[in-house]
Amino acid sequence: MNPVKTAATAALTIALAVSSVALTAQADGHGVDPAVSARQGQFQIMSLNIGVLGQMARGNTDYDSETAQAAANNLLAMSQIDQRFHWVPGTDSDSIEGTRALPAIWADDSRVLEIWGQFGTAAEGLAGVAGDGLDAMRAGMGPVGAACGACHDDYRQPR
Amino acid sequence: MNPVKTAATAALTIALAVSSVALTAQADGHGVDPAVSARQGQFQIMSLNIGVLGQMARGNTDYDSETAQAAANNLLAMSQIDQRFHWVPGTDSDSIEGTRALPAIWADDSRVLEIWGQFGTAAEGLAGVAGDGLDAMRAGMGPVGAACGACHDDYRQPR
Repeated sequence: MNPVKTAATAALTIALAVSSVALTAQADGHGVDPAVSARQGQFQIMSLNIGVLGQMARGNTDYDSETAQAAANNLLAMSQIDQRFHWVPGTDSDSIEGTRALPAIWADDSRVLEIWGQFGTAAEGLAGVAGDGLDAMRAGMGPVGAACGACHDDYRQPR
Repeated sequence: MNPVKTAATAALTIALAVSSVALTAQADGHGVDPAVSARQGQFQIMSLNIGVLGQMARGNTDYDSETAQAAANNLLAMSQIDQRFHWVPGTDSDSIEGTRALPAIWADDSRVLEIWGQFGTAAEGLAGVAGDGLDAMRAGMGPVGAACGACHDDYRQPR
């Protein structure tokens, strides 16, 4: 057994149990589950900061050490968000409108939390080098992109 | 002069200058500025986690040390998000639809970053006590709520 995977699966099981209790009574008044809004917001923050880095990596904006470091630090902060409240059962793409979160996220063999952990490791690496020049930043972005892609490939509905 | 305020104002000025360069070319394909999506997402994540704590504080759900700690840690992580990319000029409530962010946020005498710093201090305090019992958690929530309210009072358009 893969201990990381097992721990991740156990954690998600616990997380979902807690979430379903803690969040059932919540509503945001707009008919959107607040957990869905929050997790989509999470990815929007990640996307914004990856976009800042990506613009520099592609040469569309000048590399700026301080800006790159701030964006990388933001990704690292986001990676520290405990996912337990974001993935309330019944908020998958088969169950509700307005989400691309596939039911596989909630399956027993879900690797979502494992990949989230990989994102955290990658973000930590990126934050360690993002201010050290364009090439260092670019190299640090690779594992972040890989983690993003790994989750999108298997757990996000294609458009 | 208040050095915190001065530093905060200077930081926001720099942040907005950087943002306008770094983010001009971005678009999310849905006509919504990605900075607006990201900052609204930020507040949705904060709201979700405050909601978890609030449900316990009000006795609507049982206090659970581990859940409370996770929510508090999430607020602390969110407080570490550098705000520079979120507040692109021209995304105030006078300029675009779908935001309640008042123009005062961008004014020379804006206290937004100072209040964001207060939120960070409050979140750190909360994370230090949230797992220590219901009363400790409730006490720790006070300064967090005060920081939220301070910003909402002056910088968020009423519904």
